[in-house]
Amino acid sequence: MVEYIEARQLDSVFNALRDPTRRAILRSLSHGSSTIKEIAKPFPLSFNAISKHVMVLESAGLLRREVRGREHHCWIQSRPLRDANQWLEHYRQFWEERMDALEIYVAKKAKVLKKGTAHGRLH
Amino acid sequence: MVEYIEARQLDSVFNALRDPTRRAILRSLSHGSSTIKEIAKPFPLSFNAISKHVMVLESAGLLRREVRGREHHCWIQSRPLRDANQWLEHYRQFWEERMDALEIYVAKKAKVLKKGTAHGRLH
Repeated sequence: MVEYIEARQLDSVFNALRDPTRRAILRSLSHGSSTIKEIAKPFPLSFNAISKHVMVLESAGLLRREVRGREHHCWIQSRPLRDANQWLEHYRQFWEERMDALEIYVAKKAKVLKKGTAHGRLH
Repeated sequence: MVEYIEARQLDSVFNALRDPTRRAILRSLSHGSSTIKEIAKPFPLSFNAISKHVMVLESAGLLRREVRGREHHCWIQSRPLRDANQWLEHYRQFWEERMDALEIYVAKKAKVLKKGTAHGRLH
């Protein structure tokens, strides 16, 4: 059951992150809280379009909003990002192994090139 | 331009990861390469449905396939997962700060409780 809830949460987090505007909104909120009007400013999109993106982020638990008078103040909520990060960590061994293999290949290649140059100098 | 390409790649990676079946396929491939028939076995889904999920993972660069006779052998490709992980790392300070704040709160709470118990014993 817990796994099912976690799966549902990951579904909505990755769904929220698949849109570049939503990722840009999260980035802008990493500098501090903002109103939706402030969030919308740098985007060539309508206030309504930004508002919909904010709603997707909110329902994924990535953003929290507080209504103060007529303004909606938004904060980033990092916990679901941490969970997504932890899910990806499972594959860390793969990319690290690949990087190790690449480093060995580059080192070998450099050694061969160095040998070739030294050999060239002798003759 | 590079940023644009990276953004497009992240779009398709997060889009691929938002489905629990696709995440389960990646997990199963983390034990080694498999044919699509082998991948499909544990799922209550048709071969065609699994095949479509494999195509989404492939177009996101998360899976590579090689056709040998009538069998399609699949491997995990971790590079795009690493890039997605790096994107999330940007927010690490947020969840780490939150964890620090939580630890301080728990430690304070434990101290208060301990004091209360000690006080209770004296009387």
